[in-house]
Amino acid sequence: MRTNRAFKGICVLGGLAYSVYGVAQDRPNIIVFLVDDMGLMDTSVPFLTDDNGQPVRHSLNDWYHTPNMERLAKQGICFSTFYAQSVSSPSRASIMTGQNATRHGVTNWISAESNNRNTFGPPEWNWEGLREDMPTMPKVLQQAGYKTIHIGKAHFGCIGSEGEDPLRLGFDLNIAGSAIGHPGSYYGEWGYGHIKGQKARAVPDLEKYHGTDTFLSEALTIEANREITKAVEEKRPFYLNMSHYAVHSPFQADKRFLSRYTDPDKSEKAKAFATLIEGMDKSLGDIMDQLEKLEIAENTLIFFLGDNGGDAPLGDARGYGSSAPLRGKKGTEFEGGMRVPFIVGWAKPEKKSKIQKRLPIEVGGMQTQLGTIMDIYPTVLSVAGCKVPQNYVLDGFDLKKQLSGKVNRKRPESFLMHFPHAHNGSYFTSYRMGDWKLIYYYRPETPKQPTVSLYNLKNDPEERNELSSTHPDKCKEMIRKMSEQLEKEGALYPVDEQGNELKPFVYF
Amino acid sequence: MRTNRAFKGICVLGGLAYSVYGVAQDRPNIIVFLVDDMGLMDTSVPFLTDDNGQPVRHSLNDWYHTPNMERLAKQGICFSTFYAQSVSSPSRASIMTGQNATRHGVTNWISAESNNRNTFGPPEWNWEGLREDMPTMPKVLQQAGYKTIHIGKAHFGCIGSEGEDPLRLGFDLNIAGSAIGHPGSYYGEWGYGHIKGQKARAVPDLEKYHGTDTFLSEALTIEANREITKAVEEKRPFYLNMSHYAVHSPFQADKRFLSRYTDPDKSEKAKAFATLIEGMDKSLGDIMDQLEKLEIAENTLIFFLGDNGGDAPLGDARGYGSSAPLRGKKGTEFEGGMRVPFIVGWAKPEKKSKIQKRLPIEVGGMQTQLGTIMDIYPTVLSVAGCKVPQNYVLDGFDLKKQLSGKVNRKRPESFLMHFPHAHNGSYFTSYRMGDWKLIYYYRPETPKQPTVSLYNLKNDPEERNELSSTHPDKCKEMIRKMSEQLEKEGALYPVDEQGNELKPFVYF
Repeated sequence: MRTNRAFKGICVLGGLAYSVYGVAQDRPNIIVFLVDDMGLMDTSVPFLTDDNGQPVRHSLNDWYHTPNMERLAKQGICFSTFYAQSVSSPSRASIMTGQNATRHGVTNWISAESNNRNTFGPPEWNWEGLREDMPTMPKVLQQAGYKTIHIGKAHFGCIGSEGEDPLRLGFDLNIAGSAIGHPGSYYGEWGYGHIKGQKARAVPDLEKYHGTDTFLSEALTIEANREITKAVEEKRPFYLNMSHYAVHSPFQADKRFLSRYTDPDKSEKAKAFATLIEGMDKSLGDIMDQLEKLEIAENTLIFFLGDNGGDAPLGDARGYGSSAPLRGKKGTEFEGGMRVPFIVGWAKPEKKSKIQKRLPIEVGGMQTQLGTIMDIYPTVLSVAGCKVPQNYVLDGFDLKKQLSGKVNRKRPESFLMHFPHAHNGSYFTSYRMGDWKLIYYYRPETPKQPTVSLYNLKNDPEERNELSSTHPDKCKEMIRKMSEQLEKEGALYPVDEQGNELKPFVYF
Repeated sequence: MRTNRAFKGICVLGGLAYSVYGVAQDRPNIIVFLVDDMGLMDTSVPFLTDDNGQPVRHSLNDWYHTPNMERLAKQGICFSTFYAQSVSSPSRASIMTGQNATRHGVTNWISAESNNRNTFGPPEWNWEGLREDMPTMPKVLQQAGYKTIHIGKAHFGCIGSEGEDPLRLGFDLNIAGSAIGHPGSYYGEWGYGHIKGQKARAVPDLEKYHGTDTFLSEALTIEANREITKAVEEKRPFYLNMSHYAVHSPFQADKRFLSRYTDPDKSEKAKAFATLIEGMDKSLGDIMDQLEKLEIAENTLIFFLGDNGGDAPLGDARGYGSSAPLRGKKGTEFEGGMRVPFIVGWAKPEKKSKIQKRLPIEVGGMQTQLGTIMDIYPTVLSVAGCKVPQNYVLDGFDLKKQLSGKVNRKRPESFLMHFPHAHNGSYFTSYRMGDWKLIYYYRPETPKQPTVSLYNLKNDPEERNELSSTHPDKCKEMIRKMSEQLEKEGALYPVDEQGNELKPFVYF
């Protein structure tokens, strides 16, 4: 564990000043429970809905076992259409800043060691990650008197960068977070990579569990529950970034759950992955239990989410597999690459609760209007009673209305995911606008000849029928609007052989 | 060393029968001196020419030091425009078979362990490599009475395939060849990977040098000279496949030559690479000296070449660097990815030699008409007095006329390089036709929207001015001709998301 020795009783940011002590009772505790590489279908909770907004179970919902997500879903509201970025670092930076990847500049996953630039990727992308001068969500909360706790995967910046250390980004406390993006091992017996496994990705701070049979997700949960208890003893509202290394590779089985997964058609890796999911789900339940035991459940708000499209070892990157029936997976331009599970609920719903009146949440609800990973920042600050720092540009929307089960008619039905890199395919921007989705492929080898795909997600949520040739006008309209938004948000673009920026244009 | 115990005195293939003994004096010895990953500019011999066909030195020619290549060039003929495939395995299979990659099916580099298939690469490509039933060049020579010797990198097939073992492909003898494509180490001290380095790529057969300071290129040369001597003692004509692991990565310095390379603007890797080049060049000289010592130089024909575009650690994959002033490098669609050094010469030119009259070679010549890696097979068989097996389809041309310094008006001025995989970029076919070069990019994500580039190599040998938008008719013509040739040669294509083959078509 590392704590921020520089932390002082009174802090000032953006004109706000709070006393740290004596404000615990009227503000909620907030937990962002973030699961690495968890896609929309990696759960027994059905998120996909029929035309009437009713959840529909698919076969993957019957394969996975996540009773505690089901418990939270019954107490809160699920989003059928919640967009994240298709890889991890851009999403994490969006949670921390409330900005789109185009704006914070972390458009690709951060390599701990170096600039993770593809051949044609923009040279100036923000490969180092978050900086100390950014008004991150924990920083605003910290300066408003919250105890801010980071547990688990951080990966906010590369080795040697400011963002490498969560304590420089607004956390009072950091357990097990560093520049690494996945664990050297999940096994306590292996010292989480220190004894055996990938040593360069060994998880810090958990020495007391080395050589024991404590699985990584379990160790992080024990640490989290202890820190929650401490914060309560200190009578301080807390913000907990509960950031699991699970369910990212390496797909090492959590033996406590392996006996449940016996489908002979599934690989050993797929079974191990399912145990990672169930172990992560147990963590959610254990924390909810602890909140109840401490009698703070009705004052504690939980945001549960995955950080990018699924990466379950169940098939092809760009076809139908890990996120079926959605198409694609982590790193792709398809819905399976961008849609994540999102549940928000009070740990114990209580109609009469004063604190809950700040943010009424539909119990057992299903919200089909879209939301995005940029919305967490303004929603959390709002419910915590914090103002967004002055002159700060936000791309997210406060989810308050949507969490109550209603439609927010003020938010545009659009989401722009800009990926000027190559991962499971090409340099692209995915742009959702209403029922339509355009995918614009930059073609750096032939810069005057980009290509596009067009889908109607309402009629074709699985992206099977590509419509660009029959709907050229829709393509033109969307390329124009997409370009405007990219420019407005300060996007960087892939470059051609000569280093010229490839700004999108109507080429046909 | 492993020898082929199945070798018998009389063999029959394709209707030919030869007595093994008593035919040594009237047929030349043949050496194919093949350098791994050596590009056109990795030498002090200038291959590029001006409009009058005169060699022009470029700065890389002054950086490298290859006096023995210069010696061979003075005794024989250089080709300014000799095309190979842009990665190694397709080229090696073309040398062995005389066929284009489209036909032998090894269109990508062979992974020793598995099917090296990209997301959209053709599932059925020949990832296992050469088969025993193919009438390889050494097999035809072997059955015609040649002693066939393989030394160095083989990499003709993956682990467990027929092609893994050179003895199954027509070689009497194999020293240091296996399924690996690069050495675990060049250092004798490291046992070439057995003691230290990449153990899975440890070089076989050279145990006697382990722990000594014998550099790999040197060890292979000592082995080669001993085997040449033996063949002479046995009074048998020999075919030597002198296949250096150099100059492929790992870029480990050959300390014997390091002091020459002091340019402060070059990296340590670039300097190490230059020593790999010079050590390989010393090998050429040592073998030529041995041929003279054994008094067989005037009866021995040497084909010197690289197997694909350069991979020197000198810059960007797709820009100008390792093959400057040519564009691109190994794995790309550009000239720097496909042009290799090619020199053919008698080890000692002698006008009166009967054997040399079979194949008169212009001494000190420069041939500017193109040649290709498929031409070696028919040229070698022709000079050895062997017939091409009956009903065998060849894509190469006998170089006899071109080696004499003349133009062969019967050969089309075209070369088709088909790369339905992704390496340093996209799925593509490069098609040269006269002065023009078309690059057709398959775009599996948008299968109805391929893209093309067009260059005029006569005016623009560095591929700087892309002309497709101003020359649509030339593009159409070339797409049509390219398609015909691909079909004729039995090409496999990238596939789209649904697994449909992406055959080229005129899309505009």
